[in-house]
Amino acid sequence: MNRNRMDTHQKLTIGLFGFGVVGEGLYKVMQQTPSLNASIKKVCIKNAGKKRNAPASLFTTDRSVLLNDPEINVIVEVINESGPAFEIVSTALKNGKAIVSASKKMIAEHLQEILDLQIKYDQPFLYESAACASIPVIRNLEEYYDNDLLHSMRAIVNGSTNFILTKMFEDKLDFKQALVLAQQMGFAEADPSLDVEGFDAVNKWTFLLTHAYGIVGKPGDIVFTGIQNIQAGDAAVAKEKNFQIKLVAQAKKLNNGKVAAFVLPQFVKSDDPLAFVKNEFNGVVIESGFADNQFFYGKGAGSFPTASAVLSDISALRYHYRYEYKKLYHHNPHQLSNDIYVKVYVSFDDWKFVPREKFEWIEEWHAESDRKYLVGVMPFAELKENSWWKENNTSLILAPEPIIEDIEIRKLKKKSLELAGILD
Amino acid sequence: MNRNRMDTHQKLTIGLFGFGVVGEGLYKVMQQTPSLNASIKKVCIKNAGKKRNAPASLFTTDRSVLLNDPEINVIVEVINESGPAFEIVSTALKNGKAIVSASKKMIAEHLQEILDLQIKYDQPFLYESAACASIPVIRNLEEYYDNDLLHSMRAIVNGSTNFILTKMFEDKLDFKQALVLAQQMGFAEADPSLDVEGFDAVNKWTFLLTHAYGIVGKPGDIVFTGIQNIQAGDAAVAKEKNFQIKLVAQAKKLNNGKVAAFVLPQFVKSDDPLAFVKNEFNGVVIESGFADNQFFYGKGAGSFPTASAVLSDISALRYHYRYEYKKLYHHNPHQLSNDIYVKVYVSFDDWKFVPREKFEWIEEWHAESDRKYLVGVMPFAELKENSWWKENNTSLILAPEPIIEDIEIRKLKKKSLELAGILD
Repeated sequence: MNRNRMDTHQKLTIGLFGFGVVGEGLYKVMQQTPSLNASIKKVCIKNAGKKRNAPASLFTTDRSVLLNDPEINVIVEVINESGPAFEIVSTALKNGKAIVSASKKMIAEHLQEILDLQIKYDQPFLYESAACASIPVIRNLEEYYDNDLLHSMRAIVNGSTNFILTKMFEDKLDFKQALVLAQQMGFAEADPSLDVEGFDAVNKWTFLLTHAYGIVGKPGDIVFTGIQNIQAGDAAVAKEKNFQIKLVAQAKKLNNGKVAAFVLPQFVKSDDPLAFVKNEFNGVVIESGFADNQFFYGKGAGSFPTASAVLSDISALRYHYRYEYKKLYHHNPHQLSNDIYVKVYVSFDDWKFVPREKFEWIEEWHAESDRKYLVGVMPFAELKENSWWKENNTSLILAPEPIIEDIEIRKLKKKSLELAGILD
Repeated sequence: MNRNRMDTHQKLTIGLFGFGVVGEGLYKVMQQTPSLNASIKKVCIKNAGKKRNAPASLFTTDRSVLLNDPEINVIVEVINESGPAFEIVSTALKNGKAIVSASKKMIAEHLQEILDLQIKYDQPFLYESAACASIPVIRNLEEYYDNDLLHSMRAIVNGSTNFILTKMFEDKLDFKQALVLAQQMGFAEADPSLDVEGFDAVNKWTFLLTHAYGIVGKPGDIVFTGIQNIQAGDAAVAKEKNFQIKLVAQAKKLNNGKVAAFVLPQFVKSDDPLAFVKNEFNGVVIESGFADNQFFYGKGAGSFPTASAVLSDISALRYHYRYEYKKLYHHNPHQLSNDIYVKVYVSFDDWKFVPREKFEWIEEWHAESDRKYLVGVMPFAELKENSWWKENNTSLILAPEPIIEDIEIRKLKKKSLELAGILD
């Protein structure tokens, strides 16, 4: 049980790719934490002409200066473009360097390759900052939840959409006003579609599912949308029911041993920990057999929160930490399943946009105003196979406990029809 | 950067001390997680006659059977008595065994010795379950917060008192009714004083301060009380102000570089994450320079939540994890300071019990009913040096932002006296 204590304080010499908000944040944070025994030797940037808040000698535009430097034993990669990021980390792993990455899109799109490369070159590849930034969600999933015990995981993983929803809800702004405010405050990009339409959230969810359940998929495997169709009227209905609307990434282990996973807007009850997550914050609720409900909350984006997570990965490299992917390698990994029913609220401009025959049953309908809505239960596969639910201004929001498993549907349908007076 | 991968899956053979709710919980949890590659070889119990839900051959009443077995490489200790627990872990470390302990009282009382023993015998000693059970607070403090950056830490670390306060608040029970309910539901012991009077909370806070700030002290160094004097009338005042009352353990880095730390009842604002912590749950809010505010929430007690934390420590031993105590060994450890002022609410039966001359200034006083109260500012040292504030039925509750540093006091005092019309 001895550990080589000398070795744990190995000097880390870092080659950094990217000097945007996160890269520069990391540079600043590291200057304030000399105890780390790690230093940035060189920074690779794309635009040599841009003014930087660091000595000019630190920078290069030539990747190979970093990738071929034998003294550099850690590559930290915080660039935006997925393609170049993957080239960089592939070469770095091949050259025997450990990786710390914040590129959620790249990781989601190249997940299987990244897993293979880690085995092939036997190097650690850490990316805590890629999901929920300052919340140590990957580390906790790796170390705190055994496969058999993780009943469900629900999370708000995109700060930009959560900020917009908070403003729609609390300040009664409509979607466009809230988006402009988010952009003004730096919580949304000039092109906000990656956040707003759910792409960023589903990217993060793709690899969180690997750490939680051993599922190695593509973002396209997961049913998702964003908040682009949510209306002020939906917020009003939510308020009436004492709910909030959140863009929730969730995964639940089913009775059949598979996992249902999706990223969709949802009505959230006021006593749900996710209701507590306001503005640009993120939150993760994990329900496990032994630890019961746990909730982690923190800033999910921004220069310093992201840099602090990068820093914690760098720090972990000092003691040779690497992800074990236990749920994938030490257990039977789970499979995704769409074989469930979901209870949804759908608001829409005209009945013709909503195929009522797709619903198992409809519990509520409101047609009194221009904007109509219904609450009903439908097979989840419908969301995978068709897209009427996110077209023509139609807004779909999950009910608070949306998942109905196959074995329950008949009983619930009968009860529901009885209540509606159709059966007796 | 290579790690011996064979070695990481070392077989762990466990000697377990204690088969109460936690010990038995662990036994059950381990039966459901065979992937751990760890097994309980022997369990040492005190009372041989008691019926156990496990094979009789597993048990012994002879400590040395476990402590001298060379095959047992991990001792898990979950007994209640502090003295015997310390004897067991001392011997086990000496005999080259790794330790997982849940004995918060023992750890708090023997903190310096435990630190010394870990160095002397070079063995890991993990105790995640000893504070906040299922919340991985120690692990996160060890790995996520660098010394320079941890501005403050505030926590609800005792589920029993939090349950009682929740019931006083939400169901308007008085203290005694709420305590009886807590006992009936298994959230409070038959002798509840360890929880109710704050001893349990201050024990946990003692070693959390080591991981957060490198402070190695005794529970007696920290000013604390429990909730024993809180009245239904205090809850009514809190409600009026839209506050809740929580027993909050807190620590804050001061401008002078030292740390103020205490465990006291406090008014908590409704948007404070700690206000979200209801019933038997625990919560920790960490404010750091880079990661900003983070909040961890989960079950703080109970058989399975505690067992799951013990299990995560056992799991960590497989890859030779040990606490580094970075804030203690790699930085200049912080010192405790009482050199602050605090803003407090005090309710009492008679003015004669409250030495008004101790206050710098008093902002509010209410004497209209049998029960009187005031809000004022006093030197924190008064709470350390005297005990009138917890005697004669007097109830002291901190204001939401209670700490006023030395350099601010003069300015604030002047302003306060101006407002009162005494100066101008």
